[in-house]
Amino acid sequence: MTHRYCPDCGAPCVEKVPEDDHKLRSVCTGCNAIHYVNPKVVVGCIVEAGDQLLLAKRNIEPALGRWTFPAGYLECLESCAEGAARETVEETEAKVEPLGLFAMLDIPHISQIYAVYRARLVGDHFAATPESSEVQLMGMDEIPWKDLAFPSVATSLRLYAEDRKSDSFRTHTGIVEWNGEGSRFDLEQYRLRDHLAR
Amino acid sequence: MTHRYCPDCGAPCVEKVPEDDHKLRSVCTGCNAIHYVNPKVVVGCIVEAGDQLLLAKRNIEPALGRWTFPAGYLECLESCAEGAARETVEETEAKVEPLGLFAMLDIPHISQIYAVYRARLVGDHFAATPESSEVQLMGMDEIPWKDLAFPSVATSLRLYAEDRKSDSFRTHTGIVEWNGEGSRFDLEQYRLRDHLAR
Repeated sequence: MTHRYCPDCGAPCVEKVPEDDHKLRSVCTGCNAIHYVNPKVVVGCIVEAGDQLLLAKRNIEPALGRWTFPAGYLECLESCAEGAARETVEETEAKVEPLGLFAMLDIPHISQIYAVYRARLVGDHFAATPESSEVQLMGMDEIPWKDLAFPSVATSLRLYAEDRKSDSFRTHTGIVEWNGEGSRFDLEQYRLRDHLAR
Repeated sequence: MTHRYCPDCGAPCVEKVPEDDHKLRSVCTGCNAIHYVNPKVVVGCIVEAGDQLLLAKRNIEPALGRWTFPAGYLECLESCAEGAARETVEETEAKVEPLGLFAMLDIPHISQIYAVYRARLVGDHFAATPESSEVQLMGMDEIPWKDLAFPSVATSLRLYAEDRKSDSFRTHTGIVEWNGEGSRFDLEQYRLRDHLAR
């Protein structure tokens, strides 16, 4: 059950399939409102500064103490690129110019989609923030692959590293999922599955 | 105010900026839960059958009686391509094979993003449904441009028509917005603005 009480009128909700629908929803027993719950969009920036990338060590759960590029939930009334740049300021104080959509990744098992942009660091300022205990520029050979925050982050950075070798960036799409080998907690065991495959 | 009552405990909510946040949120006066509201993802298919596209006349509000390609809200636990194919079945009974991401469009003023796939009709079955009063295959010169349902639909089909002329499809990104000319209710006055432009 996603809603025990109705956010509109406060009456109890029940879980049922509404008429002309096919899924269980929370439906209000008072005002009959149907309360849908949908996936969330995470937006982030792979920030380039010359040969280096800007990475942040998370100061909040989940994945406290692990490394990521700046990313967070898209807010209402903003575009994905605006949101990715906003999250970068909030997490690293860095001002960036988004360069294009680098990856749109499905993560269906946690009901998220990730929109990841390549971006260029504008100026040279960045700093630790309440959300990031450390913020650093790192060369590609310094990326802490064993210590990244999420499978989506590891997958995006792996795709980026591959494209960067050939200096040929494209928009990647696919489903981030465990490849069935080793441990589900090992981020290196996550791969991008073709989202079009049957 | 997005939540008058807490969906978890039923107590009244107040609108305030939580600590370490920057936006107004609905916060429960009973259990202190913060209730975030985020943009929704719409997924759809531009369905190709030879030289024709599969379009549906909406049998539900909004835009009742106007034409669209099959599209609807992404559900939890599904990928965007799966959702686009599911919506196509629900609205047209057509089975499709998604071919790739054609457009990822920001529509910030209504807090939506659109993920539009090119898809191939599998078999030849399609039919009217509770959601669609008519479902038809149409040539590019039959598309009812003046009678499309939403700016996102008109913008996507316009981009598709352009790419189709050169038989060269790419992944389009941008912000769907009124171009400032004519009427806001005229879908032909909506264009795709570069989402990276300042």
